[in-house]
Amino acid sequence: MRRFVAERTKHLIRKNFLSSSNNHSFLSSQSSFFSSSSSSSTIVDPSSMESSSGVTLQTINPKVLKCGYAVRGAIVTQAEKLNEQLKKEPGTLPFDEILFCNIGNPQSLGQQPITFFREVLALCDHPTILDKSETQGLFSADSIERAWQILDQIPGRATGAYSHSQGIKGLRETIAAGIEARDGFPANPNDIFLTDGASPGVHMMMQLLLRSEQDGILCPIPQYPLYSASIALHGGTLVPYYLDEATGWGLEISNLKSQLETARSKGVTVRALVVINPGNPTGQVLAEENQKQIVEFCKKEGLVLLADEVYQENVYAPDKEFYSFKKIARSMGHEEKDISLVSFQSVSKGYYGECGKRGGYMEVTGFSADVREQIYKVASVNLCSNITGQILASLVMSPPKVGDESYVAYAAEKEGILSSLARRAKTLEDAFNSLEGVTCNKAEGAMYLFPRLQLPEKAIKAAEAEHIAADAYYARRLLEETGIVVVPGSGFGQVPGTWHIRCTILPQEDKIPAIVERLTAFHKKFMDEYRD
Amino acid sequence: MRRFVAERTKHLIRKNFLSSSNNHSFLSSQSSFFSSSSSSSTIVDPSSMESSSGVTLQTINPKVLKCGYAVRGAIVTQAEKLNEQLKKEPGTLPFDEILFCNIGNPQSLGQQPITFFREVLALCDHPTILDKSETQGLFSADSIERAWQILDQIPGRATGAYSHSQGIKGLRETIAAGIEARDGFPANPNDIFLTDGASPGVHMMMQLLLRSEQDGILCPIPQYPLYSASIALHGGTLVPYYLDEATGWGLEISNLKSQLETARSKGVTVRALVVINPGNPTGQVLAEENQKQIVEFCKKEGLVLLADEVYQENVYAPDKEFYSFKKIARSMGHEEKDISLVSFQSVSKGYYGECGKRGGYMEVTGFSADVREQIYKVASVNLCSNITGQILASLVMSPPKVGDESYVAYAAEKEGILSSLARRAKTLEDAFNSLEGVTCNKAEGAMYLFPRLQLPEKAIKAAEAEHIAADAYYARRLLEETGIVVVPGSGFGQVPGTWHIRCTILPQEDKIPAIVERLTAFHKKFMDEYRD
Repeated sequence: MRRFVAERTKHLIRKNFLSSSNNHSFLSSQSSFFSSSSSSSTIVDPSSMESSSGVTLQTINPKVLKCGYAVRGAIVTQAEKLNEQLKKEPGTLPFDEILFCNIGNPQSLGQQPITFFREVLALCDHPTILDKSETQGLFSADSIERAWQILDQIPGRATGAYSHSQGIKGLRETIAAGIEARDGFPANPNDIFLTDGASPGVHMMMQLLLRSEQDGILCPIPQYPLYSASIALHGGTLVPYYLDEATGWGLEISNLKSQLETARSKGVTVRALVVINPGNPTGQVLAEENQKQIVEFCKKEGLVLLADEVYQENVYAPDKEFYSFKKIARSMGHEEKDISLVSFQSVSKGYYGECGKRGGYMEVTGFSADVREQIYKVASVNLCSNITGQILASLVMSPPKVGDESYVAYAAEKEGILSSLARRAKTLEDAFNSLEGVTCNKAEGAMYLFPRLQLPEKAIKAAEAEHIAADAYYARRLLEETGIVVVPGSGFGQVPGTWHIRCTILPQEDKIPAIVERLTAFHKKFMDEYRD
Repeated sequence: MRRFVAERTKHLIRKNFLSSSNNHSFLSSQSSFFSSSSSSSTIVDPSSMESSSGVTLQTINPKVLKCGYAVRGAIVTQAEKLNEQLKKEPGTLPFDEILFCNIGNPQSLGQQPITFFREVLALCDHPTILDKSETQGLFSADSIERAWQILDQIPGRATGAYSHSQGIKGLRETIAAGIEARDGFPANPNDIFLTDGASPGVHMMMQLLLRSEQDGILCPIPQYPLYSASIALHGGTLVPYYLDEATGWGLEISNLKSQLETARSKGVTVRALVVINPGNPTGQVLAEENQKQIVEFCKKEGLVLLADEVYQENVYAPDKEFYSFKKIARSMGHEEKDISLVSFQSVSKGYYGECGKRGGYMEVTGFSADVREQIYKVASVNLCSNITGQILASLVMSPPKVGDESYVAYAAEKEGILSSLARRAKTLEDAFNSLEGVTCNKAEGAMYLFPRLQLPEKAIKAAEAEHIAADAYYARRLLEETGIVVVPGSGFGQVPGTWHIRCTILPQEDKIPAIVERLTAFHKKFMDEYRD
């Protein structure tokens, strides 16, 4: 029954997709990865009630139907059910724990928050304790001082008030100073828009730029599905460019150019280029030279550069370094007027991993004042982002410095997390590369591995019989037999005919040997079952 | 120069508006209140830089251009500039303080947060202090106990992890129990979607329901401009129904019906009815009988009922009480399947006023499982709402109870805030009613007064000469001469030819006499200048 309903949904989605995109068959055939991932994420209760208001899958906004988001798709829903089962009926599954390697959510897997950051947040949440003597015994002196500084930046010290729609001005000044220190080029607090994580900023820019499906956004394939989802929700067209797996997920300007030209020849106005650096799901860190080419390309073609830089602190390859696109552009001599550039940053990633706090910002440069005013207006409709997240965004851009009381502890916590992530990345990369038919590029940065699976023809056929992608089939079997949750590559997009999975490097180190063991045993069994 | 650019913008907006809406002139002529408020909020720097990417007002999404949000419009921008001037050059203005009566932001005007709530938040932000002996001296015993309870509801006690996309399950259970206690009817934790304030929930429903401008939403006029803004951003049509000022902003079902029929005759599919109760900006509390008629109307006409119930704790009229629409519907014998109903609640209002925490929820009932799955999918694209806001939403729906250590202090804080708000509402209402040509309905609830101004013809002419609405002119003069910030009625919509302002009742009580005095003197002077 479920299969029947899923089929009906898939049909609906295809119908919507084709009817709205038949002028762009080239693009739609490539973007259809995402709608298919959507269909697999739509699990429908067969006892489905009709609503009195006539709201059905047939009558809702088809853009919503079209949007897919694999990171929380069908595999994850199934994992949550199995997790419940383990709690209620321990011993009924072939494993005793679900290992969520599907999402970049470090603290859910045991990563501890940075103490200094949490001290400051607690003090700002309950400032009346700042003056009490017991507080000195509980909190570091510099966290108390920082809390006072932050409170003094907030009108009336009111951490429970709506702020300016771009965020508290003093915090934006702190963030701008942090960007300046990072880049060596000036940053303007008025360019900073504080947001509830990076996602709302991405939505805001898509909302601004996309007028209809005739407007396109160049996106990497594979990509983090926020982008495909946001483009679908805002009714635009995803114009794909492929990252080259053979060269460590390199970004070829020639490929960018040809995809841009193809899109233009189909009547699509390409408005922006998305670059995720360090890459998600692919983990590469772009070379400086490559970034320069990208800047030049955007400038020449009149594209907004949407730079997803949320993994800027997550670089593990010793020969690689993170450079912001703003730094690259300015170091090439390009001024504000030369390139429209939006950089997204989040408190969810880095060594801090504060996903649940929903803090982040976008730095918006190279737009005219009247367009900026429109961005401000859209931000103001939601009043402001949450103040706790705003404070945290200022803290990650201005952590304790040498000499501060908390510095030694802070530096040790940071180094402990980042060096452990680097070790975990290497161990898992080696494990994947040791499997039959699996090749895995190095995780130079970010939080993911994206190994390629050469799946046997028989496995692909088995998946087809169940109307799911072959990598989704592999991921489902992996979950059912080992409790390990990964996301099928088809949720991110991939070269047709290739199969991947995305696996985070986030389980704590003491869990890694068991993961490697279970994964290796599962893969061998899977291959034994399906080997051609 | 600024005027020239504003004119150009207005022209653009009109052009966009007309070209996209010429099939619905009836509706567009009524909604044009909101687009005109947008134009006045677009203050353009004359030295406006052209962007390299060709992103201009002409090439951005026209829905963004069309959207207006008066609560943070031109008057507020001007007030912020004057506020800066007061700081830098004290004594250069005819007042020494800006009084922000434009927005329901209680803590920005000195309202203190509820101690118990902040204690729990601080402990959840920094749980490592829970076990320390100093903590017992700083925090109440029940806040410590509540923090433990909440942490135990969070997998791994990780307050820095993304939660389930609907919010932490244990917190949703607490909220559902709070709704049950309020209504006397069951609530299901799976119906609760925790959100960053109420606004994202409203956007999510608009995104779901609106397919094109052929889809309409019945909205009260006057209305809180989030609704007009969200409908504009999602490309639908606002179908207005007028609240009747003469009967204390009553909601006439006959008016609802005729507006629905007119919209249908223009080819608009009306999908939902928005009701704000207690009302914003109008402050009325609906009578139970009226609520029953509304439920019956939605059921009969197949409309989703979008119930903005964020002011549920703000009822001042002794003869009025808040009833949720769910309670009303269930008490009429209507089951889940009989009516599609979404109730919005927020931590920003009530006696708590925690606007900056961005917490809230929507309770979604009466939709089929497959549509619910789509709402979940959209929620999951943004991962989850902020955990601090989630915790606070659970606290406001489950505050301390009789016998808890914090209860007496909590009850006194709550009573102090609500009784003071009632006194302030009465004093300001009387003050407005004492002014020449001003009539002001009672604030039965919410946080606002919405007095009607009979403006002299000469004042209207003076406003026309400056290309702004007459009430915007009055509000600007009021700001420039007294420092009091109110929002012109034209930002909320009003019967054509009538003029209003919205003024919050939120300044602290010791400020009220000065506000009344300045307002009275200003009004007299204004009338002396313009009286016909």
